[in-house]
Amino acid sequence: MKDCLFCAPQPYVLENDLAAAFFDIHPVSRGHLLIIPKQHYATYFEVPTADQQAMMALLKQAKAYLDAHYQPDGYNIGINVGAAAGQTVMHCHLHLIPRYHGDVPDPTGGIRKMLPADQG
Amino acid sequence: MKDCLFCAPQPYVLENDLAAAFFDIHPVSRGHLLIIPKQHYATYFEVPTADQQAMMALLKQAKAYLDAHYQPDGYNIGINVGAAAGQTVMHCHLHLIPRYHGDVPDPTGGIRKMLPADQG
Repeated sequence: MKDCLFCAPQPYVLENDLAAAFFDIHPVSRGHLLIIPKQHYATYFEVPTADQQAMMALLKQAKAYLDAHYQPDGYNIGINVGAAAGQTVMHCHLHLIPRYHGDVPDPTGGIRKMLPADQG
Repeated sequence: MKDCLFCAPQPYVLENDLAAAFFDIHPVSRGHLLIIPKQHYATYFEVPTADQQAMMALLKQAKAYLDAHYQPDGYNIGINVGAAAGQTVMHCHLHLIPRYHGDVPDPTGGIRKMLPADQG
């Protein structure tokens, strides 16, 4: 799609027929990868099943890649769907965020901490 | 698995052969759902492809269910993989968190806000 940041050529770390992985230019941790469908779909729920499955297959490979190169202690996997959920680039992307012991004082809750309303 | 909170009988909202969805007992927003593989796997990357695909098929149905019942303005999808990433219940689960306009002063960034190291 014209003027889409993620449709523009990227230096891919990994790819398959329908999906690609590249480093986030604003990483929240060492090795932070993004996985996208190569075709332009604004949000995750618009992505056809075959393309979603290609993203998930690439996610597995991306995890193996990061395990080998960064040796993280865990991962957060996340997708923001829509501006109200914090999505800024309107080309569907999945965050694979490596986590390291000690990166926060208490990691308990993970993605639950995203909202101040967290009751968990 | 014996003594696993998510292997214990749950009041499922939705299910298919291999996956189930139920409300988080500590919701971070109205309608916060969890999607699990019915079989016990501690973390996401241990879940076989067929079971992952069943989770993703159920995710799509869960989104439609929440759209109909809660009319959210967006969603965060998230999986914490391992204790270092904040996973507390060691039965793989995916969070589907409905988001509503105004639920935080500035939603920009979504899952990126989870870590204080957020540079994005």
